[in-house]
Amino acid sequence: MSEKSIDQATLKMLSKAKADNVSLAWDRLAAQEPQCGFGQLGVCCRNCNMGPCRVDPFGDGPSEGVCGATADTIVARNLVRAIAAGAASHSDHGRGIASTLYASAKGHAPDYPVKDEVKLKALAKEFGIAVEDRTSQEIALEVAETVLDEFGTRKGSLQFVNRVPLKRKEIWDKLGITPRGIDREVVECMHRTHIGVDNDYVSLILQGMRTALSDGWGGSIVATEISDILFGTPQPIKGSCNLGVLQADQVNIILHGHEPTLSDILVHAARAPELLAAAKEKGASGINVCGMCCTGNEILMRHGVPLAGNFLQQELAIVTGAVEAMVVDIQCIMPSLPQVAACYHTKVISTSPKAKFPGAEHIPFDEHNAMEVAEKIVLAAVENFSNRRPERVNIPSDRMDYMAGFSVEAILSALGGSLDPLLNAIKSGAIKGIVGVVGCNNPKYKHDQSHINFVNELIKNNVLVVATGCAAIACGKYGLLLPEAAKNAGDGLRAVCEALKIPPVLHMGSCVDISRIMTVAAAIANALGVDISDLPLAGAAPEWMSEKAVSIGTYVVSSGIFTILGTVPPVLGSKNVAELLTSGAEGVVGAVFAVEEDPVAAADLAVKHIEKKRLALGLEP
Amino acid sequence: MSEKSIDQATLKMLSKAKADNVSLAWDRLAAQEPQCGFGQLGVCCRNCNMGPCRVDPFGDGPSEGVCGATADTIVARNLVRAIAAGAASHSDHGRGIASTLYASAKGHAPDYPVKDEVKLKALAKEFGIAVEDRTSQEIALEVAETVLDEFGTRKGSLQFVNRVPLKRKEIWDKLGITPRGIDREVVECMHRTHIGVDNDYVSLILQGMRTALSDGWGGSIVATEISDILFGTPQPIKGSCNLGVLQADQVNIILHGHEPTLSDILVHAARAPELLAAAKEKGASGINVCGMCCTGNEILMRHGVPLAGNFLQQELAIVTGAVEAMVVDIQCIMPSLPQVAACYHTKVISTSPKAKFPGAEHIPFDEHNAMEVAEKIVLAAVENFSNRRPERVNIPSDRMDYMAGFSVEAILSALGGSLDPLLNAIKSGAIKGIVGVVGCNNPKYKHDQSHINFVNELIKNNVLVVATGCAAIACGKYGLLLPEAAKNAGDGLRAVCEALKIPPVLHMGSCVDISRIMTVAAAIANALGVDISDLPLAGAAPEWMSEKAVSIGTYVVSSGIFTILGTVPPVLGSKNVAELLTSGAEGVVGAVFAVEEDPVAAADLAVKHIEKKRLALGLEP
Repeated sequence: MSEKSIDQATLKMLSKAKADNVSLAWDRLAAQEPQCGFGQLGVCCRNCNMGPCRVDPFGDGPSEGVCGATADTIVARNLVRAIAAGAASHSDHGRGIASTLYASAKGHAPDYPVKDEVKLKALAKEFGIAVEDRTSQEIALEVAETVLDEFGTRKGSLQFVNRVPLKRKEIWDKLGITPRGIDREVVECMHRTHIGVDNDYVSLILQGMRTALSDGWGGSIVATEISDILFGTPQPIKGSCNLGVLQADQVNIILHGHEPTLSDILVHAARAPELLAAAKEKGASGINVCGMCCTGNEILMRHGVPLAGNFLQQELAIVTGAVEAMVVDIQCIMPSLPQVAACYHTKVISTSPKAKFPGAEHIPFDEHNAMEVAEKIVLAAVENFSNRRPERVNIPSDRMDYMAGFSVEAILSALGGSLDPLLNAIKSGAIKGIVGVVGCNNPKYKHDQSHINFVNELIKNNVLVVATGCAAIACGKYGLLLPEAAKNAGDGLRAVCEALKIPPVLHMGSCVDISRIMTVAAAIANALGVDISDLPLAGAAPEWMSEKAVSIGTYVVSSGIFTILGTVPPVLGSKNVAELLTSGAEGVVGAVFAVEEDPVAAADLAVKHIEKKRLALGLEP
Repeated sequence: MSEKSIDQATLKMLSKAKADNVSLAWDRLAAQEPQCGFGQLGVCCRNCNMGPCRVDPFGDGPSEGVCGATADTIVARNLVRAIAAGAASHSDHGRGIASTLYASAKGHAPDYPVKDEVKLKALAKEFGIAVEDRTSQEIALEVAETVLDEFGTRKGSLQFVNRVPLKRKEIWDKLGITPRGIDREVVECMHRTHIGVDNDYVSLILQGMRTALSDGWGGSIVATEISDILFGTPQPIKGSCNLGVLQADQVNIILHGHEPTLSDILVHAARAPELLAAAKEKGASGINVCGMCCTGNEILMRHGVPLAGNFLQQELAIVTGAVEAMVVDIQCIMPSLPQVAACYHTKVISTSPKAKFPGAEHIPFDEHNAMEVAEKIVLAAVENFSNRRPERVNIPSDRMDYMAGFSVEAILSALGGSLDPLLNAIKSGAIKGIVGVVGCNNPKYKHDQSHINFVNELIKNNVLVVATGCAAIACGKYGLLLPEAAKNAGDGLRAVCEALKIPPVLHMGSCVDISRIMTVAAAIANALGVDISDLPLAGAAPEWMSEKAVSIGTYVVSSGIFTILGTVPPVLGSKNVAELLTSGAEGVVGAVFAVEEDPVAAADLAVKHIEKKRLALGLEP
């Protein structure tokens, strides 16, 4: 068991699941092994009905598919489709948020007033939208329209691209990878990977980069910026995390998925006196709303809502036997949840028109009647409390406090209003550089281990860590998001953290909020008058598993930031593609991918890269 | 050899290829066999890096992927991604054409004047765009803008959806599958099929249908309508087809792919006196421009340009040793072409920024300098004439005359200006019904055999056939596109064809021109005051292989037309998905798919279906 996770809460629930005879992701992975080697290497093609085809990676069997596609073409096409799926996911999320702002501005979404007028006006100014003598509703309408136009087909390039240094923009323009419309790039990926269209792996990967950039500087950044306007820009906030946040005597509701639209409202709905009274009538002492995965991160960043865990803990939360409702929206929600829930009393409630789950109850949510639906869901959870079977309940005691909420605005505020203290710390070497640690869990790798060992190694080396997504949740569970964690950092970083009263690992939000990291990177580059690729920065996804992570990694590299993957992507079947991504891209976009499964070796790679960049900037390595 | 094709020209070139030691699609298919059974059944999932996963179709091994996705989810997700790729391909093609009209209207594409002002004005009126007292350039600009907006995200539904009967529109609205923006639907497919989003096969397939409808009533129809405006609406025209159209003493140029944008111009460029003079100087008696696949269909429909063959003949054209240049744009272009060309003197010239081919020469084409690029390409072909090796040349003598060009407008004109003669023929039973025969070739099936046997059986049964794409080319090669072919038709159809001087198989264009078939179907339904699903119609793709065909089949069924597939799609791994597509969909969209590999049995299915629909309409079966 202990080989599966470093997290005690997880290990306890793994034992309980075994005793309860419940099958989990780890069990399903074991049943899948050995996994298909062709698929793992990326040399399996199912893009037409002459196939499926497979290229023999050892050169003994066929070297081409029926159409003549080689391993290079097949691997590149598969990679580009993964990027397209990842970018599509973030972008469709962004579209949803932007549509909510539009509905709000039109007066059709009364539960969604603009929460952050300052940010609304700042964004309007960035877009050249007039703000003087206008109501916030008028401004919001024009901002929403402008942002929705980013998805369309008719603009020359995306608005947010203007945040990057001119040098970076010139590189993209020269390569022809400045994204046009967000949706358009995804569509062109799917077109180019159709049988008999683009068969040149370089050309394919350039389109993959353009599409990934339309995620990072399009869909994701729209999701972040407009969420801040609608739900408030995060500020440092305290809370706790891990399965121990579930309450034995309360109605436990877990909000899981990625969107803040319903979850933000539901947090408020659960505070309604009549629902609390209903809970008490059922014998519960209250209603405990917790988050999970990125929906969790969204409400953690803004309301300090307890966070029950990360990706591989979603089934385990149900295994506690103490969850009345697991409310899900979109993305990274295991279809197994209703099956696991069937062994307990938990109701799995799906809410998005885009994501239904066989076996789940579907309570359709939309922005026009948000509070009404949220209350209905809370009531369903409350009513389920009496079905809880005490003999099946076992909530692990493990929980940890955290400090989160580090939006760009919050970081600037912690720095006293300007980037200078951070720049000075970097220049002096107190902080050697910054590494963004992001991404998922993956049952192929010991749960949380790579995240934690990697991050610990970095802060020891005076590298400031910024984290999002399941990586950030992992950090939270091991106390790395507390200012006290600075004691494990190198002397330089420790002093900075102590002076600013910040943790050595800054939780910047959900996966779409990697856009916050990009915005900071661009701002630092602009402040120093250099390209992003000149900075002592790196990115890492130590335990990634999703196609969104593929898109993220690609936009981070395409933006000029060296990125280390901790799990092997399916590209090794093409030496050319692997070489382009890990070496050739350096001369093209000024950054590459590395793959390193060992987190300590990965940290060493990151530190060496940072030292190289420092040297090139004339700083002491 | 004879098991590979029913086409003599093809068989001859297969022998030559063998003698020349050239490897072709059939050889590569043989090398791939046995193909992966998991992939064939659709139960292989590579949508995240916890996988690849495979569900055991026999129930002995795992029944779920690592995330918990079942065979139903996996099969449905794979199908939806195929639809997304197909719809994306047609739509990106449509976007290209619409952008050319926009550039033309803006005065930036001088080689693309509006050719069909009547159609431009008709379309403007359909869209509610003013035409009085406006120049065609002004109208074109507004039409182009309106059409480009179809790709965006902000409209409620697509403009062309208004062509369908109200009853059909109501079905779509009730199911929530009326397409919104073309690109948006593709993006939502990619989002929903990401790990942990939509896991309900019904919900997934409904989104697949919505996306396919955004192809049929969006991307494809835009491509057709705007191509007609820019290049002329096809009218009945004569020509010849099959590899015998290549000329031993001329510079042979083959235009292959799908877009008319370059090819239409290149047809004109090749008539330039100075290029003809250059050809003569090289010892050639002229320049022979031929088409292949759908680029071929586009220029055949409008200019009667000879058509060298369909999908499985693209390599064989090069094997003749007589092709100076194979000029390719997008889609269905085998990446093997440069490899085959390396055995001869042929230059493979790629032209689209979206489609590059290792080993091909890339001459970038864009609409702003179209004629210049076209002339450059023709000159490259002319100069390559002297590299031809006479001892390697063997052009099969096989060629056949055809009559093509049956746009909706041409059909109406053949009918004397109204649908009534056709409706009367259907009512009287002279014509029992209409079947659209479309789609590709697939080396898993004897080349052209299913197309021809299916079509022959239909016309014998007094079923009028309308054909597009590689199916139409197959019909052309066997004389079925000649009015004389009516002698093989049943008495009723024969009499109608003879009276109208039309063939029993009407060539309606390229694959995007299936939109013409849909427009006719909708017009007939509107004329009779019924739904499309009430009509004695069927669709068939006897030898399909591409993802575009998956999208096409899905929009045809979703529009209410029973569709027969001649090659098995990868859905058999889910009984539920297969059942939904072949039976359950009847109660939802009023039509289903059938899979029947035997063309005679398939024709029987179509005829029985037509008879059933006739009976329901109160007509004699």
